[in-house]
Amino acid sequence: METAPQPVASPLRLRVKTFVELPRFGQCILALILLNAVLLGMETSAALMAQYGSTLLLLDKILLSVFVVELLLRIFAYRAAFFKDPWSLFDFAVVAIALIPASGPLAVLRSLRVLRVLRVLSMVPSMRRVVSALLGSLPGLSSIALVLVLIYYVFAVMATKIFGAAFPEWFGSIGGSFYTLFQVMTLESWSMGIARPVMEQFPYAWLFFVPFILVATFTMLNLFIAIIVNTMQTFSEEEHASQRELDKQAELREQQLLHTELRAIREELQQLREAVKSQSGG
Amino acid sequence: METAPQPVASPLRLRVKTFVELPRFGQCILALILLNAVLLGMETSAALMAQYGSTLLLLDKILLSVFVVELLLRIFAYRAAFFKDPWSLFDFAVVAIALIPASGPLAVLRSLRVLRVLRVLSMVPSMRRVVSALLGSLPGLSSIALVLVLIYYVFAVMATKIFGAAFPEWFGSIGGSFYTLFQVMTLESWSMGIARPVMEQFPYAWLFFVPFILVATFTMLNLFIAIIVNTMQTFSEEEHASQRELDKQAELREQQLLHTELRAIREELQQLREAVKSQSGG
Amino acid sequence: METAPQPVASPLRLRVKTFVELPRFGQCILALILLNAVLLGMETSAALMAQYGSTLLLLDKILLSVFVVELLLRIFAYRAAFFKDPWSLFDFAVVAIALIPASGPLAVLRSLRVLRVLRVLSMVPSMRRVVSALLGSLPGLSSIALVLVLIYYVFAVMATKIFGAAFPEWFGSIGGSFYTLFQVMTLESWSMGIARPVMEQFPYAWLFFVPFILVATFTMLNLFIAIIVNTMQTFSEEEHASQRELDKQAELREQQLLHTELRAIREELQQLREAVKSQSGG
Amino acid sequence: METAPQPVASPLRLRVKTFVELPRFGQCILALILLNAVLLGMETSAALMAQYGSTLLLLDKILLSVFVVELLLRIFAYRAAFFKDPWSLFDFAVVAIALIPASGPLAVLRSLRVLRVLRVLSMVPSMRRVVSALLGSLPGLSSIALVLVLIYYVFAVMATKIFGAAFPEWFGSIGGSFYTLFQVMTLESWSMGIARPVMEQFPYAWLFFVPFILVATFTMLNLFIAIIVNTMQTFSEEEHASQRELDKQAELREQQLLHTELRAIREELQQLREAVKSQSGG
Repeated sequence: METAPQPVASPLRLRVKTFVELPRFGQCILALILLNAVLLGMETSAALMAQYGSTLLLLDKILLSVFVVELLLRIFAYRAAFFKDPWSLFDFAVVAIALIPASGPLAVLRSLRVLRVLRVLSMVPSMRRVVSALLGSLPGLSSIALVLVLIYYVFAVMATKIFGAAFPEWFGSIGGSFYTLFQVMTLESWSMGIARPVMEQFPYAWLFFVPFILVATFTMLNLFIAIIVNTMQTFSEEEHASQRELDKQAELREQQLLHTELRAIREELQQLREAVKSQSGG
Repeated sequence: METAPQPVASPLRLRVKTFVELPRFGQCILALILLNAVLLGMETSAALMAQYGSTLLLLDKILLSVFVVELLLRIFAYRAAFFKDPWSLFDFAVVAIALIPASGPLAVLRSLRVLRVLRVLSMVPSMRRVVSALLGSLPGLSSIALVLVLIYYVFAVMATKIFGAAFPEWFGSIGGSFYTLFQVMTLESWSMGIARPVMEQFPYAWLFFVPFILVATFTMLNLFIAIIVNTMQTFSEEEHASQRELDKQAELREQQLLHTELRAIREELQQLREAVKSQSGG
Repeated sequence: METAPQPVASPLRLRVKTFVELPRFGQCILALILLNAVLLGMETSAALMAQYGSTLLLLDKILLSVFVVELLLRIFAYRAAFFKDPWSLFDFAVVAIALIPASGPLAVLRSLRVLRVLRVLSMVPSMRRVVSALLGSLPGLSSIALVLVLIYYVFAVMATKIFGAAFPEWFGSIGGSFYTLFQVMTLESWSMGIARPVMEQFPYAWLFFVPFILVATFTMLNLFIAIIVNTMQTFSEEEHASQRELDKQAELREQQLLHTELRAIREELQQLREAVKSQSGG
Repeated sequence: METAPQPVASPLRLRVKTFVELPRFGQCILALILLNAVLLGMETSAALMAQYGSTLLLLDKILLSVFVVELLLRIFAYRAAFFKDPWSLFDFAVVAIALIPASGPLAVLRSLRVLRVLRVLSMVPSMRRVVSALLGSLPGLSSIALVLVLIYYVFAVMATKIFGAAFPEWFGSIGGSFYTLFQVMTLESWSMGIARPVMEQFPYAWLFFVPFILVATFTMLNLFIAIIVNTMQTFSEEEHASQRELDKQAELREQQLLHTELRAIREELQQLREAVKSQSGG
């Protein structure tokens, strides 16, 4: 565990902590997650389920138990600190989903068990870094994302009011309009599928769709540019900073050398003056 | 108000100005705008309108009155200066839209009331900055945008002349051709929806569509690159300028130190010469 | 004319040259081009043509004559030099198109008259720069574009061989395959329109389409990145070069100052030595 | 051969090596590859095959023999070293494909003969560089690509479980789901073609598709940005490094000049002191 929370000393807890922090323990869990991923993939095949269904489900249950025990060990070892580490919380959440009784309207939750596979992201340091970098670029985008949401909201309300009655399937409710506008922004069938049929009833509907596309894609583009600029800035700043540090040290050494030499000249001068004085006095 | 226009002294006007510039006043207005946004969203729901329609409309009217009063206060406080501030004009325009009698063919204007929600952009400083940055990148793009418009115009006239008679729905008028070419540039159904049917009558139509897509997307790409380069240049220039300033100051201090020291050596030498001379004369 | 070719002295030719280089002459021609653009746009309207058809066509002919005269004047003034300037050749070509007798199978050439409007690009300096910049970024892309063409060719031949018999409409000839693959690369209906129907007959067709999309878009992406990097490099080099020039000059001044001071010290030393010597000799 | 493997001395082998490394030999092979490309293109035309089919196939066989002989010569000249050079292996593979007996279910392999044309990439140095650059940017993307694959896998398993029974054509197996999600990520008909029909049975299906699009395109975007940043970093580092080297050398020269001068002053001072002393002693 890279960013493992601080332990609390206690004979048993310390031993458990040492155990769950063993590299081999992490590797075992990672291997079991990958095995679980394969099993979950096999469960989607009707042919395999017909023949080995019970075995697959049994194995899945065993693996789930192992993960539950692993998490309980880690909770026991770290206590409150466990719940302060976002990666630990993520592990906890994706395992906990499988424990919710999924029946009736919640049956769809059963398929969320596969989210467990995402624990690979939290177990492999290089993938952790990628995910952290992806999430880390989000806060800097909040202002521009809010502007985008506001534009969306205004266009969604307008679309519902104007086109809602005539095209209930696309603009019947504000939620439906949001979805349709998202589709329009991805440019999927925006014209042949949506705008042209609408324009048959509202000939000026292009005054709604074309500006929306221009505004939405231009704002998205700027969101995108903001990410590029942020990333490049970080890289170039780091690179420059280290280079600048080296340059400054070299300059400092050179300056010290110069000053040493100048001090030597002044000492020489002082001795000379004393020589002149002593001669004068002599 | 960040960029509030210059006030004109007068007992009452000064008091009004102080009042509308209170942070709490701005926050109240912002809260009312957000409340209004929610109300306008609720008005799109037929179920809610059936039950609480009159209440919603009444609340909307009250909020509109508040905004009118707010704007009148600001106009009273700033006079002509109010109409020189683009953000104030924006506030004025989106509130004024609701006051236009919207009936008959202008009924669509009623749905423009939701533009009022965009006042959030002018009330929150961080969003103002985002919008200013978005708009600020536009002037630098005017030349390339003009080239794009010219290319569009030429292709639209050609499409109308060549395909207009056979495909009036898509290329019947120059306006229709503009719209269809915009759709083609977004790559939406350009081939299966437009080009292939056209090619059944005009087998060489791909000589029109493929070059148009290549030219239009290449020009768009360059527009896009121009924005990236502009943005990055601004950032890197700012960053470099401040860093360079610091470097220069450090260098200047170092140079002054050197010159002080060298001057001291010269003075010492001069004194020494005089000492030698005086000794010689003595 | 910014990049006007070198003139050849001769009383009349010199006068003509002076005349065609008058700023007002260029502005007149530009105005006529824009007027022509509007006329050509009006000619696309059936209603306008029914009422003012003959007038519009007459005006168009008059404008064409003016452009022909203008070009003849410029050819007379510059002679061979006229045909060496690419912009002049462009002007010549787009005017000459209208003089080709367009009847029968060449009737489509009539609609190419609108290309004349593109002369705006050669008349307005700022647009000339944009077009030059756009064209200037092309040579640096030749290697990667050739790779793309090669990939296209290989995939087009394969598609024609494998799918040609079953889907003659899309892959019947190598030209048709090129067009269809261009459509696939723009991602327009590639799956629902092309790949899924093909996969009904050739279940493994995704082994053709998915790699093609990945390879083609990845190569396009790199083409795109090459343009960005080239553009940014040019900008940053220019910026750095000028900044570096300033820095170097400042450094040089400082070095000269230092050396002047050091020379002064050495002169002082020499005088001192002479003083000591003269004292010794005295 | 730019990156030709190390030769092993032996009279005949040396001569063969000298022969296959002749620039003219490479040019001949390149010309034959291009001729082969044209022939393979002509073979796709039914009309040409009906008339010249046997000639075309004969020429193709002759060219294939030439390529086989060329490769045998190179294998004879370089031995094991031939199989260590990835470009040589590539040449070997694309020629070997044509030698596999392609009949029955393997008939599709015949159309892979056109891959031979890709040898142009390995024969022309400038194209080699482009391909090397394209492939060289891949390893740096492995972490983020793995994250993307993981996300894909999780969504594919979920889609198969939830939508598989109702929409076997799109989500019937995990392979089918992978393909459909790839289509969704390219935004092709994702809404009108896939998501809207699915939403008729599963009204909350947008909770699956919209997050998938956001996550997948955001991750793709970051993959894309990673390539840009890598490329630009390499360029700017190279440029900076060479410039910095020049700057450092100029600075070093200047510093050495200063130190020489200061040392000269010290020596002069020392001589002066001795002169004063000797005078004093004299």
